[in-house]
Amino acid sequence: MNILIKNANLVSMDSKREKIEKGIDILIEYDIIKKIGINLEENSEVKTLKENSCLEIIDATNKVVMPGLINTHAHIPMSIFRETVDGYNMQDWLTKKIWPMEDRLTKEDIYNASLLTFIEMIKNGCTTINDMYFMADEIIKAMQKTGVRIQTARALMNMVSEEDGEARFKEILELKNKYKDESKVSFNAGIHGLYTSTESYIKKCVQFAKENNIPVHMHYCENAKEVEDVINSYNQKPIDILVNNFKDVPVILAHAVKMSKEDIERIKNYNISIAHCPISNLKLGCGIANIAEMLENNINVSLGTDGQGSGCNLDMFEVMKFAALLQKGVKEKSDILNSYGVLKMATINGAKALGLQEQIGSLEEGKHADIIIVNMNRVKAIPENDLISQIVYNTNGEDVETTIVDGKILMEDYKLKLDGIQEEKVYEECEKIIKRIS
Amino acid sequence: MNILIKNANLVSMDSKREKIEKGIDILIEYDIIKKIGINLEENSEVKTLKENSCLEIIDATNKVVMPGLINTHAHIPMSIFRETVDGYNMQDWLTKKIWPMEDRLTKEDIYNASLLTFIEMIKNGCTTINDMYFMADEIIKAMQKTGVRIQTARALMNMVSEEDGEARFKEILELKNKYKDESKVSFNAGIHGLYTSTESYIKKCVQFAKENNIPVHMHYCENAKEVEDVINSYNQKPIDILVNNFKDVPVILAHAVKMSKEDIERIKNYNISIAHCPISNLKLGCGIANIAEMLENNINVSLGTDGQGSGCNLDMFEVMKFAALLQKGVKEKSDILNSYGVLKMATINGAKALGLQEQIGSLEEGKHADIIIVNMNRVKAIPENDLISQIVYNTNGEDVETTIVDGKILMEDYKLKLDGIQEEKVYEECEKIIKRIS
Repeated sequence: MNILIKNANLVSMDSKREKIEKGIDILIEYDIIKKIGINLEENSEVKTLKENSCLEIIDATNKVVMPGLINTHAHIPMSIFRETVDGYNMQDWLTKKIWPMEDRLTKEDIYNASLLTFIEMIKNGCTTINDMYFMADEIIKAMQKTGVRIQTARALMNMVSEEDGEARFKEILELKNKYKDESKVSFNAGIHGLYTSTESYIKKCVQFAKENNIPVHMHYCENAKEVEDVINSYNQKPIDILVNNFKDVPVILAHAVKMSKEDIERIKNYNISIAHCPISNLKLGCGIANIAEMLENNINVSLGTDGQGSGCNLDMFEVMKFAALLQKGVKEKSDILNSYGVLKMATINGAKALGLQEQIGSLEEGKHADIIIVNMNRVKAIPENDLISQIVYNTNGEDVETTIVDGKILMEDYKLKLDGIQEEKVYEECEKIIKRIS
Repeated sequence: MNILIKNANLVSMDSKREKIEKGIDILIEYDIIKKIGINLEENSEVKTLKENSCLEIIDATNKVVMPGLINTHAHIPMSIFRETVDGYNMQDWLTKKIWPMEDRLTKEDIYNASLLTFIEMIKNGCTTINDMYFMADEIIKAMQKTGVRIQTARALMNMVSEEDGEARFKEILELKNKYKDESKVSFNAGIHGLYTSTESYIKKCVQFAKENNIPVHMHYCENAKEVEDVINSYNQKPIDILVNNFKDVPVILAHAVKMSKEDIERIKNYNISIAHCPISNLKLGCGIANIAEMLENNINVSLGTDGQGSGCNLDMFEVMKFAALLQKGVKEKSDILNSYGVLKMATINGAKALGLQEQIGSLEEGKHADIIIVNMNRVKAIPENDLISQIVYNTNGEDVETTIVDGKILMEDYKLKLDGIQEEKVYEECEKIIKRIS
């Protein structure tokens, strides 16, 4: 099917265009953005599509049309652990609550919990998510059922045993081969963290990433205890391990809360992106990453929610608001991190982090059609004043009315359009899972 | 009219009840909560009301019924200045943007901008707001048109002149007299700040509050520059001025960002509440108030948005989330500020701050019926796990479906029920105002 989105307030995130353009049409042919322009209904190609009843027309008058948001750090099946942390310190929450529950998860649980996350993504205007968990095969099956875009990996570590560490590489390669024709899934080398692997294994992971031409995705310096643990086991600082081992490979570092100004300067010529997860970092008492400094050093900063157990939900609009405000508060400067820069973090910077900038992250002719339509006719968004700031500060996921991934409408006018998936049934299943494993 | 809310998940915020009770009915007679119980339809009084067609029944199955939220620091007509601050430092934003625009505001502008704020309140489940601005008469008229509850004042200062300072007391007394029969408005002595008045005038303001049995509401230590300015003009620290002058009077201090541990300890036996405005404080680059320490010292902490120019919007659910998370992040402790405590800040603590705890802030028999109904059948709130945390972390104002103030339904099932007010018309007027005065 082809789609014509008409008369949009376009926020394309294409650096070659104006930040906001009004009255713009977008033509989608199959999975690709074919044309962005004015009065496209007068275009002969569009006329032909219309005559042949091959065109769905969506009126976007007074609505914002923008790229689907990109969540660069999550643990997809952790949806079911939402709001289990109140009153716990991080260590107790993990060891006493989460890990025992995770041990009881079946393949079917992973599939259902993933469906919940994908429904949540679609309903909140997030079209791509970067995952790190286990039973990735089930996660991908759920992804195919719902039609979102993911990057995933079997988390890499050799803490359990050397054999287990090796087996994880094999698992990724098998998945990569199994899903080679699935354009919406990509893979990365998801190193769980420095503290759950040895340096020799870390080197193997980097080598594995290079050989397979995939990025590394790794938890890094999430909190003070992690830094201490790494120093104790490596007898090196995390930053030294990083600069010594991660040159010449694209890396997505999740969190990076405990990075000093000097640490940041040392990685500025690396191919490292930071997946900033402000809500999770606050909720787990980790602290606030110094992203103002990272941005000043031209480091690519993208955004993530982390798993819902700590990140609450997948609302990337909320994450943008936290990211924008925290630096202003902590640095006591209101004129840093302007709204457009924050919107870049949730879109094009996310695509860059995942190595997908040629395909997604902005609305440009030839890119894949990952597009959301946002309702701005809401009291919180009146008066308009600055539309980009309205998106960052006064919009939340529930204001997204239509979500399109790879040219396919997954939600239209707030209604899911997913074949064979009943939203209520997924909710019921997930309520059952958490009751059973608690 | 009388209302029966049936089968609710009740979060009453009444310390004598369980935190969450399921299957509860609430009977509202006129403006008052008459009864809270089970199966009230079998109650003879309810039967009579029903037979006489004097009862509206609202089914709240699977919904949360809770007290309307209380916003203890705002500037009601500043709705029109939403998102005007991006890229400005605070001083430039005030002097170059806001003040020149404020000078051009007419009475009609104040009325229309206030309508926008009241619509925003109702749609976001906020039922009471504490105001400080000018042309309070217009604000109260708009309040009466919409039916919300407010506390307001002419901002007190003698920076302009002594005569002007005196005239402001008179203005409050006149308003107090004019609206003595309007139960939904109350007044306070709204001292603009230490830095815009002299110490002798401050003493007069406190005396005025005592004589009229109303609380003081004052901006206090919002940022480092304010503290510096106060020290320069008083030759005393703000905390010394506070403890020397504000004993034996109820005080609402807005912001209190720059209070040290020692400052906090010095006011713990005062009748001082802190209106914490985390979003505005971050956005203006002021910093993060030390509310964890305040709570440890049993100081009453309530929440506020500040004006929308800096506070973005009036979504008190968002304010709760920021309040809950910031302290955890800054203190690097995840087990502080539990969800129930945060919910108290937005409800009963707010009522205490305004001196209205006998009337509102919790759902109890005999209190005024300021009640909201929240839809929890949303993907962000699945699985339920911890309902109180779901309210604090995964709910926003737009999830409120019904808002009742003083027993009157102002919004039902997301639709405003306001006589003589057209939402779209108010939006249009406000767009016009900001274009005219910019």
